[in-house]
Amino acid sequence: MSVTRQVNLREVGPRDGLQSCKSRMSTADKLAWIRGEAAAGMPEIEICSFVPAKYLPMFADAAEVVAAAKAIPGLIPTVLVPNAQGAVRALEVQAPKINLVVSVSEGHNQSNVRRSRAESMAAFREIAQKVKAASYKPKLALSLATSFGCTIDGPTPEDEVLRMAKEALACGIDELVIADSVGYANPTQVRRVMGRVLGEAGRNVTVALHLHDTRGLALANALAGFEAGVRMFDASLGGIGGCPYAPGATGNVAMEDLVFMFESMGVATGVHLPALLRVRELVQMALPEETLVGSIARAGLPKGWHPATPRPRAAA
Amino acid sequence: MSVTRQVNLREVGPRDGLQSCKSRMSTADKLAWIRGEAAAGMPEIEICSFVPAKYLPMFADAAEVVAAAKAIPGLIPTVLVPNAQGAVRALEVQAPKINLVVSVSEGHNQSNVRRSRAESMAAFREIAQKVKAASYKPKLALSLATSFGCTIDGPTPEDEVLRMAKEALACGIDELVIADSVGYANPTQVRRVMGRVLGEAGRNVTVALHLHDTRGLALANALAGFEAGVRMFDASLGGIGGCPYAPGATGNVAMEDLVFMFESMGVATGVHLPALLRVRELVQMALPEETLVGSIARAGLPKGWHPATPRPRAAA
Repeated sequence: MSVTRQVNLREVGPRDGLQSCKSRMSTADKLAWIRGEAAAGMPEIEICSFVPAKYLPMFADAAEVVAAAKAIPGLIPTVLVPNAQGAVRALEVQAPKINLVVSVSEGHNQSNVRRSRAESMAAFREIAQKVKAASYKPKLALSLATSFGCTIDGPTPEDEVLRMAKEALACGIDELVIADSVGYANPTQVRRVMGRVLGEAGRNVTVALHLHDTRGLALANALAGFEAGVRMFDASLGGIGGCPYAPGATGNVAMEDLVFMFESMGVATGVHLPALLRVRELVQMALPEETLVGSIARAGLPKGWHPATPRPRAAA
Repeated sequence: MSVTRQVNLREVGPRDGLQSCKSRMSTADKLAWIRGEAAAGMPEIEICSFVPAKYLPMFADAAEVVAAAKAIPGLIPTVLVPNAQGAVRALEVQAPKINLVVSVSEGHNQSNVRRSRAESMAAFREIAQKVKAASYKPKLALSLATSFGCTIDGPTPEDEVLRMAKEALACGIDELVIADSVGYANPTQVRRVMGRVLGEAGRNVTVALHLHDTRGLALANALAGFEAGVRMFDASLGGIGGCPYAPGATGNVAMEDLVFMFESMGVATGVHLPALLRVRELVQMALPEETLVGSIARAGLPKGWHPATPRPRAAA
């Protein structure tokens, strides 16, 4: 790899994106997407969820996707697990990085997994012990959903985010993901919350920011997070995700726009944007009924544009 | 007015927006827009252009619009003039604030007004003398277009922006508008350029930022400008403008989203967002063939949202 990245991005479209799409994507298309984006320089991709196929049939091929993604040189494939059973399945296939989600708002956690936050955190502590005990040394991440607000409970108290962050850090996690699951965050709040969380996490735990663009502030929030010291960001190609309720409107922040912002600012992502935009075209072909969003794919790169990352990790 | 504004916004839709729209708007609809937005708390609106009606027939009613807008309590109505003839017409109707545009890129200026930048600046100096000599003491603004890049010349050298800013300041202007006319700016560049321009302008000249959202970075750029010290921003309701080449896609940053960002951050704009969104509906009805953009109008306000501006300037 010839590029020194100043910020790390994680593509979450194959999990967070596809989970919210009506359309199904074949295993072959998923792997073309994952391989293509890794070749464009994406260092990490959340590739699937180990949830029972009867609930989310689009992830029935999770084990196959993990096996293929593990063979991609230089890529960190991450998997989501909803509970202990999911963690067992992920450990069976030796998934390199395992991510769990708990909501900071009680209402969202009850609605999402029909448990209290306390119950979810107790379950997480058990799962964390299992993951940490695995002989192949998987990495462990916890995502705190609705960290900036909740459609059920309204504003999320910052002290609650910090309290749950400390609980998570006490479990020996490798990464803590602070998520604006429903697009409630604003830049002032992001700067304040992320500054506090980074202070708690210290240098040995990665702190990531997961943003949705529901109300148009995702890139401004990413900028505020970067200024607060965040160096890991989630996004999805074409803003995939959140489709069922408002087509093309409320998904993750569009990866290509996040790359464009950072690269324009002189902050190297390691991602080759023209190559990433070609992968976006593949994804659009594989999901013809989905409306991809994003500005840079529509407007094109500025004349004389100079990215911070000069060329892809793999040969273009 | 009960609200202490921390940032000043200027609606430019009735000029910059309508100039780029295929649809025409009646004088009555323009005035309903201007009155409605002023009642929602908008402190300043660019209401028309004094350009010959044979070129831009949508501004044939400029004198009538000025007369009506001057009667709105508390509103600063701004007019654009393209040249000395336009300035004479604006002075005849005693327009309270007059704005001229010169491009920082030579290619854009030639394409826009078929003159070199030097010729445009020489003309501006003459116009500035006329405006400053007017007995009713109008305010004078100069807008520097393509300050962050140009579709013809590519990147704009920052030193050129500073050189032209100094020339403009030497003319005794009241306000200097730094414009990203084609959506080329990034937050790092905005912070650097605006910091330098603010340093040159000193405390007696307002420095404004005029952003287009062509590549999705307008709100992040506004945030960067605010952090650099900018306290005056242009925007247009529904992102109107730039329609002819890419429908609904490359206009000014959407006013309602800019208000939402600042108000969410605790930065008072003086604008009552629910009232502003009702004006947006009026504008959409008056321009049924135009596609308005913007996130907050689509997604709605977050549950439990607390704006910095509690209520409109006028009684709601």
